[in-house]
Amino acid sequence: MQLADLETPQLILDRERLDRNIERLRTRLAPFGVSLRPHVKTNKSADVTRRLGGTDTPLTVSTLKEAEYFLDHGWRDILYAVGMAPSKLPHAERLIRRGARLTIILDNEETAEAVAAFAGARGLDLPVLIEIDTDGHRSGVRPEDEALLRIGARLRGAPGQGAWLAGVLTHSGESYNCRSHEAIEACAEQERAGAVRAAERLRADGHAAPVVSVGSTPTAHFARSLEGVTEVRAGVYVFFDLVMHGVGVCAVEDIALSVLCTVIGHQREKGWLITDAGWMAMSRDRGTARQPVDQGYGLVCDEAGRLIPDLIMADANQEHGIVRHRGDPALTPMLPVGTLLRIVPNHACATAAQFGAYTVVAGGTEVQANWPRFSGWA
Amino acid sequence: MQLADLETPQLILDRERLDRNIERLRTRLAPFGVSLRPHVKTNKSADVTRRLGGTDTPLTVSTLKEAEYFLDHGWRDILYAVGMAPSKLPHAERLIRRGARLTIILDNEETAEAVAAFAGARGLDLPVLIEIDTDGHRSGVRPEDEALLRIGARLRGAPGQGAWLAGVLTHSGESYNCRSHEAIEACAEQERAGAVRAAERLRADGHAAPVVSVGSTPTAHFARSLEGVTEVRAGVYVFFDLVMHGVGVCAVEDIALSVLCTVIGHQREKGWLITDAGWMAMSRDRGTARQPVDQGYGLVCDEAGRLIPDLIMADANQEHGIVRHRGDPALTPMLPVGTLLRIVPNHACATAAQFGAYTVVAGGTEVQANWPRFSGWA
Repeated sequence: MQLADLETPQLILDRERLDRNIERLRTRLAPFGVSLRPHVKTNKSADVTRRLGGTDTPLTVSTLKEAEYFLDHGWRDILYAVGMAPSKLPHAERLIRRGARLTIILDNEETAEAVAAFAGARGLDLPVLIEIDTDGHRSGVRPEDEALLRIGARLRGAPGQGAWLAGVLTHSGESYNCRSHEAIEACAEQERAGAVRAAERLRADGHAAPVVSVGSTPTAHFARSLEGVTEVRAGVYVFFDLVMHGVGVCAVEDIALSVLCTVIGHQREKGWLITDAGWMAMSRDRGTARQPVDQGYGLVCDEAGRLIPDLIMADANQEHGIVRHRGDPALTPMLPVGTLLRIVPNHACATAAQFGAYTVVAGGTEVQANWPRFSGWA
Repeated sequence: MQLADLETPQLILDRERLDRNIERLRTRLAPFGVSLRPHVKTNKSADVTRRLGGTDTPLTVSTLKEAEYFLDHGWRDILYAVGMAPSKLPHAERLIRRGARLTIILDNEETAEAVAAFAGARGLDLPVLIEIDTDGHRSGVRPEDEALLRIGARLRGAPGQGAWLAGVLTHSGESYNCRSHEAIEACAEQERAGAVRAAERLRADGHAAPVVSVGSTPTAHFARSLEGVTEVRAGVYVFFDLVMHGVGVCAVEDIALSVLCTVIGHQREKGWLITDAGWMAMSRDRGTARQPVDQGYGLVCDEAGRLIPDLIMADANQEHGIVRHRGDPALTPMLPVGTLLRIVPNHACATAAQFGAYTVVAGGTEVQANWPRFSGWA
């Protein structure tokens, strides 16, 4: 079967690029002696995740549904890397009783108290990481904050005995705003140093705190030192996208994901091609709008994945895309109705989430496989 | 069951507001003697659509998957209101053979020729509307364009005999950019006059062209004349959203949709509440960013759906939301971990698409029902 045999829009995954991206980070991290714990929130697919490694690969997830799905598919060592809500503890317990080696995170005393009480009452072995805020980006407690030790004090269990402090976790969200390799290196060092410092303070306070977990796709690719770090997390690197290209982490030719669409009409005076991939297919993510080069809703390739110079998806309605020349609409090639195009997305996590499956190719236009993916929370 | 018994995030639909919104447009259009053909791309749910009317209600859809789903649930009179791609004709044929009374649209000669050839070869009864561009917003042919009659000339079949010209369709996309009722009235008149003019030209050229289909949620609510119009389409009016509030079509208290989430942490110095509804739950739609009042990712209500003054969801990561006071973060109420909040979205079509079901309430916090919805294309 060929791409031309499919109804559009479709989510296309180039397996050759996927495998190359996976190998690149594996090779890059090998000398550091750290564990890689991929974040599967990007791919939400057992088929994609199998390319990352067997079911003994430690995983990071962003929802308990991801944890449950990957547990169902054989993975057991799972880190749920969003601050625990006490109301989700019964769900976490069900996963642990079914065999998950689930680690959770939190960043405040109230949650630590609720988690410790629940794990104690239910006799659960529940490792906990304290989330550290190393760049002011989102959640987490600062490495030097007094609250850090107070939170740790709530987690005085030991492995096998209730909730216990397994270590610390941080994420350099600010690394997405970097514009140079030097800036990413600086973010990576800030991420590392802050996490290690927090772990040292907890250890000085009597905790074993063996785990120091850091990571983001940019910092994982450019960190110069990972001293004191035990594991690195990254997610979008398996696909890459235009935001990561804008940060300087990948070439456009590394991006493994695109959306296949069909030209359905024209506005010739305006230099517009109208396609059947709108924001429902691409997502509303306009992550490159804040970068030096705004890519609209994405760059445009031909059916075989070859970039068409200066053609971008400039605007979107729910099921309509507007494609034109980036600079001068008079230069837009008036491709005939029925032409297949592939749009390279701003943000792989957001675009992939709009689809129920990946249509897999290997560099060409022949369909190799169909890999389902899931969505939702409950 | 109460909302507090659910894991978050959840998509909440207030059935009382839904029914009120549906009744409002029905009542408004009754004196005009036009048919209302609701656009179900917003709700993608048989349970929601049943509130709009029985299976004899004519529907508008944005994908053939919607057409297929609603056919499976008993509806037959279905308008697929995105320009036909020739590659989708076999799918359209399957739906017609299964009993759909499917109408398609197109705006160019190439597609008209392909549609006529296909319908002729397959012996299909295929009514076609020509899409008219009345405001330069997206696709369609201008009412005065010479191409209009050339397209019509390709569609010389008759009911029961191949592809035949059933009339014209237009959509005032620009009405979403209006800022006053007077401006919406002007958009509505432009939409009406352009569609009627195009139909008159086709009729003068020998076509029956009985259908004149117009509509958008703003123009449907404010049109002063619908002379010459036979049917009105609107979709988001069943839920409404903050974009429609910004356009002036509804009150915040009319919005039937919200996302239930949980406070999972704080950044007290910054005045931030961290929640477990990020952009994956809300979508990346920032439609109010271009309006006079930017609502961030949404307005914040308590668990019962009562607005908390000046609290907005200011930023989002994939599974994290940042909620703060709109003006002065020092005024953010530091609601405890575990507090349930409901976020009123910018764009109902985009937010609803992130979920697999509606959790239905009727003004309060008691769960009345769970209504599944679907997504995807294939």
